[in-house]
This record gives sequence, C-alpha cells and structure tokens, in this order.
Amino acid sequence: MSVLRVEVPADSLFGPENMPYGVFAPPDGELRVGCRLSDMVLDLAALLDDPVFARPDLNAFLAQGSSRWHEVRERLRALADTALPVDTVYPVSSVRMALPVRIGDYVDFYASIDHATNLGRLFRPDSEPLLPNWRHLPVGYHGRAGTVVVSDTPIIRPRGQRRTASGTPDFGPSARLDIEAELGFVVGTGSTLGAPVTVDEFTEHVFGVALVNDWSARDIQAWEYQPLGPFLGKSFATSISAWITPLAALTEARVPLPVQDPEPLPYLRGTDDFGLDIDLAVAWNGEVVTHPPYSRMYWSPAQMLAHLTANGASIRPGDLYASGTISGPEPSQRGSFIELSWSGSESITIGADSRTFLADADEVTITATAPGTAGRRIGLGQVSGRILPAHNTSRP
Amino acid sequence: MSVLRVEVPADSLFGPENMPYGVFAPPDGELRVGCRLSDMVLDLAALLDDPVFARPDLNAFLAQGSSRWHEVRERLRALADTALPVDTVYPVSSVRMALPVRIGDYVDFYASIDHATNLGRLFRPDSEPLLPNWRHLPVGYHGRAGTVVVSDTPIIRPRGQRRTASGTPDFGPSARLDIEAELGFVVGTGSTLGAPVTVDEFTEHVFGVALVNDWSARDIQAWEYQPLGPFLGKSFATSISAWITPLAALTEARVPLPVQDPEPLPYLRGTDDFGLDIDLAVAWNGEVVTHPPYSRMYWSPAQMLAHLTANGASIRPGDLYASGTISGPEPSQRGSFIELSWSGSESITIGADSRTFLADADEVTITATAPGTAGRRIGLGQVSGRILPAHNTSRP
Repeated sequence: MSVLRVEVPADSLFGPENMPYGVFAPPDGELRVGCRLSDMVLDLAALLDDPVFARPDLNAFLAQGSSRWHEVRERLRALADTALPVDTVYPVSSVRMALPVRIGDYVDFYASIDHATNLGRLFRPDSEPLLPNWRHLPVGYHGRAGTVVVSDTPIIRPRGQRRTASGTPDFGPSARLDIEAELGFVVGTGSTLGAPVTVDEFTEHVFGVALVNDWSARDIQAWEYQPLGPFLGKSFATSISAWITPLAALTEARVPLPVQDPEPLPYLRGTDDFGLDIDLAVAWNGEVVTHPPYSRMYWSPAQMLAHLTANGASIRPGDLYASGTISGPEPSQRGSFIELSWSGSESITIGADSRTFLADADEVTITATAPGTAGRRIGLGQVSGRILPAHNTSRP
Repeated sequence: MSVLRVEVPADSLFGPENMPYGVFAPPDGELRVGCRLSDMVLDLAALLDDPVFARPDLNAFLAQGSSRWHEVRERLRALADTALPVDTVYPVSSVRMALPVRIGDYVDFYASIDHATNLGRLFRPDSEPLLPNWRHLPVGYHGRAGTVVVSDTPIIRPRGQRRTASGTPDFGPSARLDIEAELGFVVGTGSTLGAPVTVDEFTEHVFGVALVNDWSARDIQAWEYQPLGPFLGKSFATSISAWITPLAALTEARVPLPVQDPEPLPYLRGTDDFGLDIDLAVAWNGEVVTHPPYSRMYWSPAQMLAHLTANGASIRPGDLYASGTISGPEPSQRGSFIELSWSGSESITIGADSRTFLADADEVTITATAPGTAGRRIGLGQVSGRILPAHNTSRP
C-alpha cells in the first residue's frame, strides 16, 4: 500500500502539538472521527483500527475517559512523524465537516467582567451595571442544544417579537442581529446525579475546547428576557468550530486567574486553578474588527463546571458549556457588536462599508491562537457563519 | 399458549380510552415500551411484534409521526377487548418504570397568569407583578434535559449559594425547597431549522402529555436569577410521570382558551386552538393540599410551541416543554408551595404537621384526571418524589 508523510510547515497552527478532533465525511464516505494535522485529516477508525472512531460523533470516545484520551493522543503524536497509509489521510479541503459532538445539555455562562459590565450599562442604564451576585458566582443559563450547528452552517435571520416605540410589540426579522465570541468546553466524562464536580476535577471531566459564536438577536432578547432570561433571542442558532482542541494541547496556555475579589466561596476554589491565554480575532466580512483576550476572563473554566454541578446536577459526555462573550477592557477587545457599536450608536467601519449590527449576506469568522511548545503557537478551529435573509412567511 | 383478558373496572382511570405509553422492565427483563391498561402493562414489542418498541425509550416510535401513532392506538384499543397472550402482559406492580423518553431539549414556560402574578408579587414586591411582555408572549426558558428523572426517583436536597441577611451569600442546603405542578408536552415529530411550527400544526408535532414536577430551590433561585434566569435553583432535578398520555386520549378534555387581551400577534393565533380541562391534585405526605386547574392556563400548548419555534428554532422527537406552574385564581388552586405558604409566611397544615417548604423525607405526589368518553374520566400517570437529605460534603 502507498504511504505518505504529512509535511508540517514550521509555522503551522496545526502541528503535532495541536491535533484537534472532529467529525468528517470523506468524498463519497460516511461520517467518522478525524484528527487534524497541518492541512490534512487523519481517518482514525482506519488508522487505529478502532470502531469507536467509526461513528458520526465523538461521544463514544469522550465517554472512555481521560486516560484513554491521553493514550490516543500519544499514539497520534507518534504517528504524526511517520509514513501513513494513503487511504487514511485526506486533505481538509476535500472533506465535509459535521457537528463533532452530539450535545446533551448546552449551558452558556457570562464570565467576562468587562462584557457583563458593558451589557449591564446598555440593558439597564439606570442601575448598577454589575448585579450583586456577579462577583460571587459564575452566572449562567441553559441554551438550546438542538440548534447548535457546526461552523459554516448558514444562519437564517430570526424573526420574533420586538418592542416598538409605542411600547407594544410587533413581529418581524431581527434588526439587531449580533454575535458573541466565546470559548466552549466539551465534557468528556460524565458525573452522577447528586455528586458535584470539584474545581480540581476539571481536567478529568473536560475533554477540550471549541470556538463558539452564540448568535444573538438583541431586539428579541431585550423584550423577552425578563424575568426568566434569554430564550428566542438566542435559540435560533449557536455555531461551534468543527475542531475540538484537547485540553492536553493547551498546557502552555495555562495562566493564573485575574484577582477575584471577594474571594470565592470554598466550592469555587481549587488548589491549582488556571485561566487560558487564548487570543481571539473576529473578522467581519474578512476584516478583523476586534481581538477578545480569553486571558482576561474573571471566572475559570473549572469554576464554571464546579458551579454548574454544585447543586448535584449531573453532566454527560458531549455536554457543552461556553464562557459567554469574551470582552477585554479595551474597546478593541469587545466580543460582541452590541458592545463594539455601543448599542448601535457608533458605526464600525469595514472597508468601504459601515455597520452596527449584521446585514444579510454578512459573514463572521472567529479564529484563535494560543501558545504552544518552543515558542510556537497552536490554532483553534475557526467558527464561521453567513447570514441568510429572514423567511418572509412562516415557511422556508 | 395461555391467554388472558384484562378486566377493566368501570371506574378505572386507565381504561381503553386512555392507554398511555411508558418504558418498563419486566422482572429479569430489559427495558422496552409498554402501554397501560387498567393495572396491567402490555408489552408492545411482543404483542405487536415490532422492534420499534423493543427499545429503552419512545423516541423511535415518536419519530414515526402522527399517522403511525393513530394507527397503533387503534390497534391497541381493539386488542384491549380481546384475549392476550399471557407473556405479553404484566401487572404494573411487578415492573420497573424508566424515563419514557430520551429528552433532547427541555423548555419550561410560565403560562399561568395567576402563578406569574403571584411570583411577581413575591420576587419583585416593589413593582408591577406582571411584566410588560407577559400578555404578549408565552415567557419561557431552557431547563436542563439531563436531569429530568422519572417519577419515584429520590430527590436529593440541593446545595447552593443563598443570600444571607448581611447581603453576601453562603453555601449550603436549600432551606426553601419547593415544587411546581406542571403539565409537560412531549414532541413526537421534529421540524427543520428555520421553519416555524404554526399553532394549527400542534397536533401533528406533539405526541402526548406527562405530569411534571419542576422541583425548585427558591433561595438559590432568588439569588442567582438576575439577569439570565433560573439555573441551579432548578437544574438539580425535574420529575416526570412514567406514563405519557397521547393527545388523542384528550379530545374530550379540549376547552376554549380564556380570553387573551390584548389579542395575540398573528403567529400566536390558530383557527381552532384549545386549552385542556385537566384537574390536578398535589398530595404532600399523602394529604391533598391544592387542586391546580389546567383549564385556567392563559397560553395554550399550541401557542407555546409556535412561540418556541417562531425564530426558526427546530424541535426533535423527544423534546419536552412544560407549561410552568399551574395555579388558579383561588388560594386552594396554587401549584407551588411558595404560593401556598405565601413565601413561607403562612403555614400549611398536613395532618399533625405544619410546613412552609419541603422537609427531608417529605413525599409529594401529583395526580390528574380529565374528561373521557361517556362521562367517564381518564387519569394521567402520577409524578411522585421523596426528598433525601443534602450531602454533607461534595461527595455522596
């Protein structure tokens, strides 16, 4: 059988220290689990002769637990430097990517202090922007798991109720369609109902990270969200990257958390907790308009998971929880357009155009990099989506 | 082979006009789909020789669509009056019931105007109890699908953050553990992302109803719920009945909706929409303490589904959405203990005891009946749960 060696350029963001997982279909083939190396996809079911990868999602592999994840990763890193059978390797450009995980529950947090402060100012201008609970717990809520879609899925502009100037609502296409640039955490190992997951158990339970774009219809959201939180303003679609980067690839990206004042309650404290130094970039029709820094997030990924399970709620392999919008303290670091345009009051220049919220046919792509070994950087899979016009009737 | 005929007492709530579906394991057997007739369970995989019922959940059957549901129902109603092979029938008391549906997304609404008004008074005493959006749309939010449990699953008292008198929180067992008596709607036929389900399409998409107890930790909820809604105050457990009553069994229970003022927007209007005349009863340690009337609900089940999908959000077979607490206008019709005890200020007498919120070892059972044919009544499957003490540490 013919063999080939994947040549990895020195500046590749997807070298052997990265090797994210995804689900792909080769030309004329079924969905299966793959691993990305440079611009190629390795067919793991074929390469490792293991049926756990001959499935249309990562869930079965996730459920095998952290020892197994590390074992497979070591094998793949070793194989990356060898000649591979040609029928186990495909160019990324030749395959179709699918949603990598069958998502059980999807939770979205609100872990950026700069984002929460900005949104508080915009949504509740007459009161203190940060609510009294914010510094005591990672605020979060459940989103719609069934409308999480893989990167490059077109996003149909949602319709819904918006408050008019008269105070009563009408119904129509959202006029304030927005993004939220976020990091998502994919649960590998589940837990038992009634048994919280501690901060220190984070790396045993969480498999890896994805980039997330939590599309948001701000006019629908503003009218509906009291008192039970966002619902239709978010549930029409949430996009995630096709590639899940294992936590094991992000050891060089670990950074101390920002100072948390007041000190969190004991259940939110661990012995060795960490943030992640991941730099995001958001491109609007090809032009980068903001650089959200994940390193500035107030609550850690482990604290979010400990909080989510503190009441005994169980997690399942394939659950997804996201950080909430990543915004830094600078205007050039804001992770949503409602912040960048300050609720539509300031235009954002994109080439010859200007924007406040998303226009039909606009495309948004979020990318991110993090420190790798030996001064190199690794890339997260990008998350991209283009806006389609709203349906004129209730039928597509 | 031996045969038997199921004798149905004239006053049975589970006669041939009811015949709800569930998932059960016979003694020493695997989980499979069953249908209840009087106090017996029919083993559908065996009786109908159809592998769609030889599964641990109803999802595959649900996905077959409404024509198929009606066809199976007609066959079962015909079989109910015949002699059945003995190895296809089990006493209810001999089997173990399991969660009937693998739930995709779980949404909880807030469709009782009396409940919303009561909660507004209690949670926001300084402002108008009903928020401006309430009469314009069925307020709802996503709950945690992975912690929906079948009736009779013990409920571990959740721990969490509660605000103390000083204004800062502590962490410990909820001291205000409550119920919410609700009706749940089980989605059968899914929809396509981007294509709303209209009010008139309700009966094509929704398979049946379950009783729901949406356990709620009011102290945790009150501290956490601003601005993104309830999270850990609800996510520790939601109980549903083991039996799903098909909508087809509830045709005699259809009633006109209460007057909706202002008139809802067109997407919330149908040509033949209806409410349901279902009478609930909540027993606390065996004593009935309240009789919530479903007929008083402001928003219809079809309106809830139309709203849920109005933004293009898709639904999947096995999705569950619930009505929110069912409260009538009378104090004796309140569907939660925070309403019955008026936030703990008035004790509820139960035999020799008095209560405001749930004590450890308390048991709550919600039952319900609805009009059947010829002046008879049908019963919904009950939902029951007993409170176990909180774990003292983070480990069970």
